[in-house]
Amino acid sequence: MAAPDLEDIVRLCKQRGFVFPSAEIYGGFRSTYDYGPLGVLMLRNVKQAWWRSMVQLRHDVVGLDAAVLSSPRIWEASGHLANFTDPLVDCRNCKERWRADHLEPGDDGVVHCPNCGSTDLTEARAFNMMFKTHVGPVEEEGSEAYLRPETAQGHFVNFLNVLQSSRKRPPFGIAQIGKSFRNEITPGNFVFRTREFEQMELEFFVPPAEADRWFEYWCHERLEWYVDLGIPRDLLRLRHHDKEELSHYSSGTADVEFRFPWGWGELEGIANRSDYDLRAHSEASGTRLEYFEQASGERYTPWVIEPAAGATRTMMAFLIAAWDSDEVGGESRSLLRLHPRIAPYQVAVLPLSRKETLVPVAHEVLGLLQPLVMCDYDETQSIGRRYRRQDEIGTPLCVTVDFDSLEDRGVTIRDRDTTEQVRVPIDALVTEITSRLAR
Amino acid sequence: MAAPDLEDIVRLCKQRGFVFPSAEIYGGFRSTYDYGPLGVLMLRNVKQAWWRSMVQLRHDVVGLDAAVLSSPRIWEASGHLANFTDPLVDCRNCKERWRADHLEPGDDGVVHCPNCGSTDLTEARAFNMMFKTHVGPVEEEGSEAYLRPETAQGHFVNFLNVLQSSRKRPPFGIAQIGKSFRNEITPGNFVFRTREFEQMELEFFVPPAEADRWFEYWCHERLEWYVDLGIPRDLLRLRHHDKEELSHYSSGTADVEFRFPWGWGELEGIANRSDYDLRAHSEASGTRLEYFEQASGERYTPWVIEPAAGATRTMMAFLIAAWDSDEVGGESRSLLRLHPRIAPYQVAVLPLSRKETLVPVAHEVLGLLQPLVMCDYDETQSIGRRYRRQDEIGTPLCVTVDFDSLEDRGVTIRDRDTTEQVRVPIDALVTEITSRLAR
Repeated sequence: MAAPDLEDIVRLCKQRGFVFPSAEIYGGFRSTYDYGPLGVLMLRNVKQAWWRSMVQLRHDVVGLDAAVLSSPRIWEASGHLANFTDPLVDCRNCKERWRADHLEPGDDGVVHCPNCGSTDLTEARAFNMMFKTHVGPVEEEGSEAYLRPETAQGHFVNFLNVLQSSRKRPPFGIAQIGKSFRNEITPGNFVFRTREFEQMELEFFVPPAEADRWFEYWCHERLEWYVDLGIPRDLLRLRHHDKEELSHYSSGTADVEFRFPWGWGELEGIANRSDYDLRAHSEASGTRLEYFEQASGERYTPWVIEPAAGATRTMMAFLIAAWDSDEVGGESRSLLRLHPRIAPYQVAVLPLSRKETLVPVAHEVLGLLQPLVMCDYDETQSIGRRYRRQDEIGTPLCVTVDFDSLEDRGVTIRDRDTTEQVRVPIDALVTEITSRLAR
Repeated sequence: MAAPDLEDIVRLCKQRGFVFPSAEIYGGFRSTYDYGPLGVLMLRNVKQAWWRSMVQLRHDVVGLDAAVLSSPRIWEASGHLANFTDPLVDCRNCKERWRADHLEPGDDGVVHCPNCGSTDLTEARAFNMMFKTHVGPVEEEGSEAYLRPETAQGHFVNFLNVLQSSRKRPPFGIAQIGKSFRNEITPGNFVFRTREFEQMELEFFVPPAEADRWFEYWCHERLEWYVDLGIPRDLLRLRHHDKEELSHYSSGTADVEFRFPWGWGELEGIANRSDYDLRAHSEASGTRLEYFEQASGERYTPWVIEPAAGATRTMMAFLIAAWDSDEVGGESRSLLRLHPRIAPYQVAVLPLSRKETLVPVAHEVLGLLQPLVMCDYDETQSIGRRYRRQDEIGTPLCVTVDFDSLEDRGVTIRDRDTTEQVRVPIDALVTEITSRLAR
């Protein structure tokens, strides 16, 4: 079937409660978005799947949750105050400000202001993308704080604290999920590039000689993570950066890219950050951020391999990849073929009608399933329309309670992808649902 | 045993990896904190327990995850721009700034500056506690954004979006977990009052006539939540606010309070916000935030009952309540009697020695348990010291793999609270662990 375009996704997200424009009743607010009832469930599932794979199922990774409000000294040492910039030009005529690298000369060979047409533009100046605020009662130079533009530096400045409290030794990692903020001049493509976004970042500390091997390991692991959760391989690629493209801290980077409606876009960057960050913070703080290997008596600064993914854009990629339609009984049907771990709800419990006799059994079924999985519960509309609604939001299984249920203590399980229905005794329901979701 | 004092908790948190001062290698940063390997697990568990109770196990509550960067129009309508203030005075002599309500007259009956002793102080002025930043390339009046001081307004401005996409009707709730930011002049008591903190807020929309009943319902439900997760009832109380104490939006508030080392402190406020917020945003936006009951043809503005809890201070309360020590075999022992749902790790897998023959079995055991629960894995030190370490961080169960395991395919389960040990076949381990944790 045809791939969805961006407008299809935006419309679905609004109508079904995945993503709303923030402050919409006030006309929206600067490309910020709120995640609705389905979006928050799906975003939680994306983050939980990452955490499970990167922390829970491993014993060489521990977690961290560092503050968003952060010290200018961190960003001075990391290089962000000097280097995390976009080049901007001002129009001296109308006072508008533009990304210099987005302006192109007109037919006359001269760059014009896109707003007023003037050619009286300033030279490009570096504009820092970090959000600044002031902490404490007085706005003065010493009261500045930055909203972190990445979660990453938290891992580095806490390196010794984590090492001492967790008894880990390289190779080991520190994983963090959380919000980051970048004052993007040109946010866009819905939730792909927003000023407020959520990251899932692992900093994996290794002996320097093992850095290349671990870089390869994480490139492979991370690509497979998306495949395991249902993104078709032909919508993914691993692209290695050219030398000119590398960030100021990186000695090697590969991006996991997804084929978005507008072209290939980054879901995740896997970077070999060398010992850049630990050394930078060691020098700036006067604290040696090193590992001391007791057995060999050797002291060294670990190298860092960083797989850094965007949670919000990854959720968007899952939605696009799952988008599908087919024909059922001669009628066309829209559905999201989401992996059960990623779908907002795993099960919908549907009493055939609102008749009061069905409610106790429907609630009994709900009570059995709710401790295990997220359940929707819907007693509106006809059963056919309710099935189609669940298909459209990607719910893998529906459980229908009907009038026979009162007699035979059985319910019907309906499969989203095949639309097949099977009758199951309520006593066997938990086992049956669990095994079907663990495919 | 004696209750811990604040220093005991701060020390445990630092040493064992629950909470570190942010940017500690740079001398810290303005009462911000980072959650370390154990803290992030415990904080996740607190939030997950809330979400499970408030969203997953109910069918009358849906979730939301709104943006932190927010429109001034929201906070103008909500009353925060005008009312969310502390009274501050400036010292004209030394230029320091103070909370007016924290200054008391000296022996001479006059208020002195606590810094320089001058009595030349300004009148008190209202200081807004919201953090301000600028969005976009130019710092100007129209580019202002606020970091939300509560998650709550997101629920109200999205009221119609949620209603339309979720097919819920009053009584129903919208639940949200996320960071909020307040420029507190006097943060303190470790993570009890910090400028960056995490909230768990439910806005429950009800027909106006049912508001009192639902207020009582939520006061009871919320108090019991803490008890169910192991906080002794005598460390908790429900305190109803006096009329003078009520917030500008509230027509009735009760606090769930915990007996902290320094006295009773709020964990959660349950407020009857009436129709204040929906009406305020209706008037400011020109959009009618009302519910239309099709059956009766009635249109009304729901009232709102809001149980709003602090996740970070709740985590601190769980730590304090779980703090204990006893004697085992004539030796004193420190332990955290944390509920299994709240403890950072549910199980620690401990090979008796680092001998290579034990590693494959230990990893096999780890592979069985990791998909179900968070497992620590430790092969350092003597087994006795490892047990004591797990006691100290609150791990309910240890599973020890010893040399007999190679012969009898059995392992030893040790209970944190009783220190009892039982031998269990590896084949029965998952069932045994699951049933012991589900107590």
